[in-house]
Amino acid sequence: MATDVVTMDKIVSLCKRRGFVFPSSEIYGGLGSSYDYGHYGVLLKNNVKAQWWRAMLQERDDIVALDSAIIQHPTTWRASGHLAGFTDPLIDCRTCKLRFRADKLGEEQCGRKPSVHPGEHEACSLTAARDFNLMFETTVGPVKEEGATVYLRPETAQGIFLNFKNYLQFSRKKPPFGIAQIGKSFRNEITTGNFIFRTREFEQMEMEFFVPPADAERWFEHWLEQRMNWYLELGIRPDHLHLRAHDQDELSHYSSATSDIEYLFPIGWQELEGIANRGDFDLRQHAEHSGQKLEYVDTADPSARYLPYVIEPAAGADRATLAFLVDAYDEDEIGGERRTVLRLHPLLSPVKVAVLPLVRKDGQPELAGEVYRELRHRVQAEYDDGGAIGRRYRRQDEIGTPWAVTIDHQSLEDRTVTLRDRDSLAQDRVAIDELAGEIEARLRAPWRSPKLG
Amino acid sequence: MATDVVTMDKIVSLCKRRGFVFPSSEIYGGLGSSYDYGHYGVLLKNNVKAQWWRAMLQERDDIVALDSAIIQHPTTWRASGHLAGFTDPLIDCRTCKLRFRADKLGEEQCGRKPSVHPGEHEACSLTAARDFNLMFETTVGPVKEEGATVYLRPETAQGIFLNFKNYLQFSRKKPPFGIAQIGKSFRNEITTGNFIFRTREFEQMEMEFFVPPADAERWFEHWLEQRMNWYLELGIRPDHLHLRAHDQDELSHYSSATSDIEYLFPIGWQELEGIANRGDFDLRQHAEHSGQKLEYVDTADPSARYLPYVIEPAAGADRATLAFLVDAYDEDEIGGERRTVLRLHPLLSPVKVAVLPLVRKDGQPELAGEVYRELRHRVQAEYDDGGAIGRRYRRQDEIGTPWAVTIDHQSLEDRTVTLRDRDSLAQDRVAIDELAGEIEARLRAPWRSPKLG
Repeated sequence: MATDVVTMDKIVSLCKRRGFVFPSSEIYGGLGSSYDYGHYGVLLKNNVKAQWWRAMLQERDDIVALDSAIIQHPTTWRASGHLAGFTDPLIDCRTCKLRFRADKLGEEQCGRKPSVHPGEHEACSLTAARDFNLMFETTVGPVKEEGATVYLRPETAQGIFLNFKNYLQFSRKKPPFGIAQIGKSFRNEITTGNFIFRTREFEQMEMEFFVPPADAERWFEHWLEQRMNWYLELGIRPDHLHLRAHDQDELSHYSSATSDIEYLFPIGWQELEGIANRGDFDLRQHAEHSGQKLEYVDTADPSARYLPYVIEPAAGADRATLAFLVDAYDEDEIGGERRTVLRLHPLLSPVKVAVLPLVRKDGQPELAGEVYRELRHRVQAEYDDGGAIGRRYRRQDEIGTPWAVTIDHQSLEDRTVTLRDRDSLAQDRVAIDELAGEIEARLRAPWRSPKLG
Repeated sequence: MATDVVTMDKIVSLCKRRGFVFPSSEIYGGLGSSYDYGHYGVLLKNNVKAQWWRAMLQERDDIVALDSAIIQHPTTWRASGHLAGFTDPLIDCRTCKLRFRADKLGEEQCGRKPSVHPGEHEACSLTAARDFNLMFETTVGPVKEEGATVYLRPETAQGIFLNFKNYLQFSRKKPPFGIAQIGKSFRNEITTGNFIFRTREFEQMEMEFFVPPADAERWFEHWLEQRMNWYLELGIRPDHLHLRAHDQDELSHYSSATSDIEYLFPIGWQELEGIANRGDFDLRQHAEHSGQKLEYVDTADPSARYLPYVIEPAAGADRATLAFLVDAYDEDEIGGERRTVLRLHPLLSPVKVAVLPLVRKDGQPELAGEVYRELRHRVQAEYDDGGAIGRRYRRQDEIGTPWAVTIDHQSLEDRTVTLRDRDSLAQDRVAIDELAGEIEARLRAPWRSPKLG
């Protein structure tokens, strides 16, 4: 970590400068802890989500997909326990009028004397703690008094439990099998911050894996390993990633075991993903509140009926995106010039290849345009003919483009181009006709972060 | 249309039976007009969205992406006109206690005498019409009275206008250029229905194309053509698609021209996508309300400054998905047996290839498993060894899988398989080593709906 050049400020600044992430509603002064993803941010996050789908759906035969509504029937949250228990204890200060989370009081700054150390509130007159529900509330129907009060989901998981029975029926799956979902969740937290690490509106990638109760521990271990490997294979350095098992007193009421995958952010070790053994808590609650039978019944042996246990790997798409950005960020020197470079796994890179004519004359832009239009059928590509070639390479390095194709004098003669590698800086001469195949082959090849040395 | 076998009931039934779409929160009795996408529905809709991104981003160099927050600064909606004008006129009946949209009263059924013709409300005692805002309202912050009232966005477009200035700065784009976004929007409508055609929570695919005012008409025509072609190239039959220009009295206050792309649903011609010339209305409004300059200034000629006009193709991802399902639905007979088949464009098909051992013995399942595991690295694949081969073909036909690989006796001897085509029913013998390449080549080939004859 000592040699790591990355800071949160550098990430935030790069994200704004190059259009990865902007503060939301900025022309109206912003809306606290809310962010919009710009062009390269959308492409990067879409790639993160696509790789999660790939690992969960495409490369396995025991997981199916779901996309449930954000607004669900309100009884959902009574059954799940969110209505009663999804709260933060808040403390008001009568003097400085600020509001603090009781459990974070020791880290908060007094509003009257912000210069003193965090947690020193002797100038304050604090109320007792009161519980605030973190769910956003709204009303369906035309008139408030008559409409049903509903909630924006605080997690995507419950939509999966509500559909469990449907999946048993249509999918011909039986435990062990999983249901995976990507979607937005909303939490009305007062403590947010650290850029896109914690926001009120965020995107989750959750999977509920239903197993025979006796196999729950084995599958819990399976998913710890699978999910760690996902981050590692996509280039996160092993020494920036670890598993942390929850202590007994940290565990949620529904969980008999939870481990967090933590990443070493510039703000310290923080949760990237939680993997929990939820037992049969959720299915039991929804069976009770709905009056429906949610047991799995073995068609071959109808006496074998049980409520499956659930192993849940719950990841944050925004946090994962931030971790990949942080881990990829690097600075080095080329020919005496300082360079910022995102050493992203090529599968995650927003743009796979840039096409650059060396000079803006002699037929080079025309040939480069032809190459670009051919490549973009296959991968996300960019054409750039503005400015010195070194500067154009820097622009692509900074957004993590793994390869750049340069069209030069020789290209016009023999229809070959140079293919430059972002990390090794190697320049290979490749025939234009073989370019798309070469890039697709490189995309499929195993990859190892150059930061690992 | 006379020979078309599709009805909305058949689509709804197929969607539930095969896990494309379920009514949301069904175990709690449902939540009106709310749906969850099941496994094949997620895959299909993801493909629809991926093809939109492909057409908007990957295959063009003049459009960039955005993913803005659902909850934006509330002034957004004052500036856009939604707070004042995004309303439905509602009429109450004092007798039957129902509520009707004033402009749809002629189509609504009386609650007391539902047997009489729609629009006959002589048994009713109707109030005058009152305006009701369609935006969902909620509160940010822990206490309602103190928190800011905010809204769930009723359209994704405004997030684009709020970020226009950011994009001028980072993207080095100048008009004509566009910003594209896919995301959820929410409208608290009382008139919903027709399956996923109109729901309170829905996903939009919107693009705002910023142009010099003098070029607006030309670009409007360009986008009409582009968007029509998008549906046609993805297999929608030309006689089920048309453009309908809005009459002068139908136009929104901000638009000087709007045309709808309409599709012939089983419920009749309905809007699939609207293409509008919004002029400079939105940028002008946000410039006024924010006090920011939102003009484009030409760096080469700073006297050339103007508020760009905006051409907006606004499509619904759910409607598009429904249209592709409806258009693909077919029934025919094979060997005397009735078959339901989704003749989806292969790029849209949830599963690209199914791998089926002819029998569950003689080493066929082992070889089929090997083939399946190889193919799934490249495309979404499915393995199925359950039941007679004909039944397994039917299952894949019904979800629109374009190709099925069958491993038979001969496969064990010469490592070839049959590759069956969903539509032509042709069975080609292909070497296992060439299978992935063959399928990828077929996916890239131009496609024409067999329903076109």
